[in-house]
Amino acid sequence: MPSNPGWVKQLTVAEPQGGDLLAKERAGSNINVDQLAEYMFTKETLEKRERILKILVEDPVFDKSQNYFQGRESRIEASLAKGKRLRQLTVKHNWTQDDYVVANDLLSEPTPYGLHATMFLVTLREQGTPEQHKLFLERAQKYEIIGCYAQTELGHGSNVRGLETTATWNQNDKTFTIHSPHLTSSKWWIGSLGKAANHAVVMAQLIIDGKRYGPHPFVVQIRDLKTHEPLENVHVGDIGPKFGYNTMDNGFLLLNHVKVPHVNMLARFSRVDPGSGKYVRPANPSAVYGTLTWVRSTIVLQSGSVLARGVTIATRYCAVRRQFQDMDAKGNVGENQVINYTMVQYRLLPLLAATFALHFTGRGMIRLYEENQKRTAAKQEASQLSDSNRRPGPEELNPGADLLADLHATSCALKSYGSTVAGEGLEACRRACGGHGYSSFSGIGTWYADYLPTLTWEGDNYMLTQQVCRYLLKSARAVLSGKASENDTSRILKAFLARRDTGAAFDVLASDTDLVDAFAWRVAYLTFEALQHRDVEKQSWNSLLVDFYRLSTAHAQYMVVKSFYDALVEESTRSSLDRQTLAVLHKLFRLFALHTLEREASEFFSSSATTVRQITLTRKAVMKLLEEIRPHAVRLVDSWKFPDWQLDSSLGRYDGKVYEDMFYRASELNPLNKVVFDPYPDSPVLFKKDERTKSKL
Amino acid sequence: MPSNPGWVKQLTVAEPQGGDLLAKERAGSNINVDQLAEYMFTKETLEKRERILKILVEDPVFDKSQNYFQGRESRIEASLAKGKRLRQLTVKHNWTQDDYVVANDLLSEPTPYGLHATMFLVTLREQGTPEQHKLFLERAQKYEIIGCYAQTELGHGSNVRGLETTATWNQNDKTFTIHSPHLTSSKWWIGSLGKAANHAVVMAQLIIDGKRYGPHPFVVQIRDLKTHEPLENVHVGDIGPKFGYNTMDNGFLLLNHVKVPHVNMLARFSRVDPGSGKYVRPANPSAVYGTLTWVRSTIVLQSGSVLARGVTIATRYCAVRRQFQDMDAKGNVGENQVINYTMVQYRLLPLLAATFALHFTGRGMIRLYEENQKRTAAKQEASQLSDSNRRPGPEELNPGADLLADLHATSCALKSYGSTVAGEGLEACRRACGGHGYSSFSGIGTWYADYLPTLTWEGDNYMLTQQVCRYLLKSARAVLSGKASENDTSRILKAFLARRDTGAAFDVLASDTDLVDAFAWRVAYLTFEALQHRDVEKQSWNSLLVDFYRLSTAHAQYMVVKSFYDALVEESTRSSLDRQTLAVLHKLFRLFALHTLEREASEFFSSSATTVRQITLTRKAVMKLLEEIRPHAVRLVDSWKFPDWQLDSSLGRYDGKVYEDMFYRASELNPLNKVVFDPYPDSPVLFKKDERTKSKL
Repeated sequence: MPSNPGWVKQLTVAEPQGGDLLAKERAGSNINVDQLAEYMFTKETLEKRERILKILVEDPVFDKSQNYFQGRESRIEASLAKGKRLRQLTVKHNWTQDDYVVANDLLSEPTPYGLHATMFLVTLREQGTPEQHKLFLERAQKYEIIGCYAQTELGHGSNVRGLETTATWNQNDKTFTIHSPHLTSSKWWIGSLGKAANHAVVMAQLIIDGKRYGPHPFVVQIRDLKTHEPLENVHVGDIGPKFGYNTMDNGFLLLNHVKVPHVNMLARFSRVDPGSGKYVRPANPSAVYGTLTWVRSTIVLQSGSVLARGVTIATRYCAVRRQFQDMDAKGNVGENQVINYTMVQYRLLPLLAATFALHFTGRGMIRLYEENQKRTAAKQEASQLSDSNRRPGPEELNPGADLLADLHATSCALKSYGSTVAGEGLEACRRACGGHGYSSFSGIGTWYADYLPTLTWEGDNYMLTQQVCRYLLKSARAVLSGKASENDTSRILKAFLARRDTGAAFDVLASDTDLVDAFAWRVAYLTFEALQHRDVEKQSWNSLLVDFYRLSTAHAQYMVVKSFYDALVEESTRSSLDRQTLAVLHKLFRLFALHTLEREASEFFSSSATTVRQITLTRKAVMKLLEEIRPHAVRLVDSWKFPDWQLDSSLGRYDGKVYEDMFYRASELNPLNKVVFDPYPDSPVLFKKDERTKSKL
Repeated sequence: MPSNPGWVKQLTVAEPQGGDLLAKERAGSNINVDQLAEYMFTKETLEKRERILKILVEDPVFDKSQNYFQGRESRIEASLAKGKRLRQLTVKHNWTQDDYVVANDLLSEPTPYGLHATMFLVTLREQGTPEQHKLFLERAQKYEIIGCYAQTELGHGSNVRGLETTATWNQNDKTFTIHSPHLTSSKWWIGSLGKAANHAVVMAQLIIDGKRYGPHPFVVQIRDLKTHEPLENVHVGDIGPKFGYNTMDNGFLLLNHVKVPHVNMLARFSRVDPGSGKYVRPANPSAVYGTLTWVRSTIVLQSGSVLARGVTIATRYCAVRRQFQDMDAKGNVGENQVINYTMVQYRLLPLLAATFALHFTGRGMIRLYEENQKRTAAKQEASQLSDSNRRPGPEELNPGADLLADLHATSCALKSYGSTVAGEGLEACRRACGGHGYSSFSGIGTWYADYLPTLTWEGDNYMLTQQVCRYLLKSARAVLSGKASENDTSRILKAFLARRDTGAAFDVLASDTDLVDAFAWRVAYLTFEALQHRDVEKQSWNSLLVDFYRLSTAHAQYMVVKSFYDALVEESTRSSLDRQTLAVLHKLFRLFALHTLEREASEFFSSSATTVRQITLTRKAVMKLLEEIRPHAVRLVDSWKFPDWQLDSSLGRYDGKVYEDMFYRASELNPLNKVVFDPYPDSPVLFKKDERTKSKL
């Protein structure tokens, strides 16, 4: 790289400096950044993050300086090196699973070990027998075998029942033959399969004696443990470049009548009896249900911090960036900080509010899930003690089933809503950075592109809403027939029925609880409306999908508003935070709720939750809140405590040296500046000065 | 690349085949595809496209097979080769500018000549004197010099007045000294500057005798014409990778007291008199105004076809893709085509309607602009003939100024709205393709990423809305004071005032003209509301920016609805299209309008343009229209006539061979499948089998 000439090195940024602007922002707010951060993440977690960050930053394998420049092959090669080093560090520092997750978060890129370290190990652990744990799990934990979880097929996504791959039981030699009958049955999108894995858990249709028993998991070795070349009758590879996530080797897999022994069918829940060749039914079909609920709750919690990265970058840059004078300013007062424009505040600050809202919601979900797990375990134990001979009823087999069903539906609604808000919010943050948001150095584009699959995986955000509504309709029927369980969903449905004929009259502008209740009212209204369409008017399920999407979104918004409110009034919150910080969080709660209400105004009208006049006033209240929150914006994003190394963004630097960093990356790191074009159309030469000098024409 | 083993080559796609599904779709609609295409584009244009397509497809330089796999350097190298070849073909086939544009559209990627061929030539032509045309334009047209247009700076985007680069007049030697005083004054984002250009039109603050005269254009040579190395005191390079647009060498440029002769200041409109050193004021300041209006109108027209590419891909794939059985289906009826789900229709078909709506709107804009240009030219000529000695007044100098002001405001509103709809619509199309939408082979991701800058350049989509509202407020004041010109804006404002006290009562569900009028009513309502805030309540401009954005969007939506309606009732339309095709276009018009009305419901309520009950009925009407349009969806996208070569999409193939193509690209074209990983964390080797075999750890 030619270094910058002397006269360039002497150039400075025009006044005012970004660092001074940010310092002024920080001086103008009394938010207690460290206190708020400790309350959100705990002191231990923050210290752990610091400790691990130090290890990563000092290790040259984790150097990020070429990330934005490298093509896919170099990127994935570097990412494999990072994956290997993370594993080595895990062993060296005796990292827990939690430490490993923190390190991955700081690294902020998927590595080719990603699916081995998560889905492969989890599946072996949860669906394997002790014998299988010994055979597969223990070796996988030691990285002696590397695996992945192969479910989705080229022609089959969400619909697991539609999978084509077959596993046929051979009674004579006690084996299964795994086979891909068509091109469309090729496993596809499987993370860590393309290049890294030598084993796969393959979901295949179990066939015994010509009869189909649905999809089941089989461990299949696919590559040689020494040469890493595909085994015979295995066709495996990387599926090619994607919109993002290009450091992951998402792969394809075709199997041509590949035989695996009986022990390779994961048999904790259902199995084939090798003696009789009979299928043995699953003991506890809802176990997986619980895992998915857990995974989705994690996505909800993450959606807050995923979005917070974009909001941190955009907020800091909008405080440094100046464009135009204020239209009403007299004389030459200099350009205005972009964050002072109400249109920028209107785009950015509701997203800032959403980061906290989603964080508290996700945290609440995970707490509920953990409580439920404990209660279930306790009840099961008690039930086993009380009568070990009596045959248990279904409710006893899974005593938390009812609460779990509610949690499951809520997790579906919130996964769909939270990841949509985060994904679309990141793009809004990128645009709020103006032209520079489009540069890779903004740090938002790659992050956004890598996050987008979350809107599709673990249940497509549109598909999932059907599950939410199935549950809400069932709850409404139960409430109407007087057989409803005691949970929040039944409570809001009953409250609606009780006041349906007297009207709502929520004081959304003056009362926080009325504001929460208005969101609940809208959910109940839409639920009974959908029930009317489905049960009374007998409308087809398909004709109601758009209504269902709206209902699920309304339900998620209610949950988020309620969770944020609950977090604010919690004793532990009030004792952890000082008065000023609490007051600003309260404003963020109101901004999130009122801004959402304003955007969804027509449903609040038509359900009579609010009047038209209240919506007009809501708009004014939102503008007022923007003005009140604006001085605290920089300190609020500081509270998320993203290290610069993690953000890898010129625009989002803590020290405000935005333009210096943009220039440095472009001028000194950019490998394209090593080559010299031959610009004349009639010349056959393309690059004049480059080791690859060649003529292409 | 290892070729697929024999057993893989024999695999077929599971029934039904994509080709059969698309054939059935095409058989189920009576839309006259060729007739509709000829009506939209003219037969001549379609034939020209075919002719040029043939030339490009047969030329190996334009091979697209590695596009999705290449890293930035290889991509830009290939793109330079394509740029050169396009120029050679232009000479060889004697292509017109229009032919060249068609070739570029088919190629569908920016090349490093992009800004030379457009902005550099246009600026020299429009802002240069005949002497300067000879000196610069003629050589540029022959590609003897390659140039770009350098306006934006690292610290200064939209606000041209804030530019830092200076051009100081030296009376002693009749030169200008061009200088970059700070790092933030570095030119930035300049297309074709980074690697290709040897000249730049640099916008710099003109300084004479210490006095500033604002930004003016200067031609500056920046690289040696032989070696292509930067000249002394010039620091120039590529700004690095971006979210998209990576085949373009957007560049930076710093100038250290670089002297250029007097002739290098483009002097058609304003100039420095070399004898006296006095500044001579521009003769016709609104000329640039007209060019920008033209550029924005083009963006509006393009936004329809930009979006149509995504809609074509998504619609075809949603007809081929099948997922789940219909929920109410009895027994095993097989999986349902995704396009049959109402939720998919609701996401996709309004976008399909928008493609036509934007196309007709853009076409209308360009016609109006051209008419206005003709009228202006005619009036100017007449005025010169009648009295060649009289000094003309400002209105005579630019007799179309009033219509141009209306056109200018409309083009701002429509540029902002149209490019936002297209950009966000493409992402909606990508998601409608489910998981496979995320693959580069979908062809949507790259296209979307390359399009996104359009939302920011030629006037940021948020900033522009202020110009729209400034015009609307001015018009409203003129209407109130009885001094309004005769144009559509005045008409709708007057119509509102006339009925304000008697109410609207638009029959939006039964009458097309009432539907259009309801959109107009909303615009007028919001305009007078904004006027009240600004003029009566004296609210600050900044506090109204969110209201202005809403108002501009409302104005754009009105224009689009009106333009679509006008196109439908036009005699030329009714005589060009058969009854069935017209009937479906009419449904698309209603879908676009009613779906927009439903989404913006709260503004239609609060302005009393509709009742709450009408909104509820609108929802039902939208669902009905989706059902009626769905059978025609594939033929409607066929009418856009995108060749497969242009789409470069596995999912959007005309023949429906979606899965075959995905598999082929992944398995046979993907260079990553040439390397073999070493997957063990303790091994220092990363890639086992690759020419670059190395150990990194």
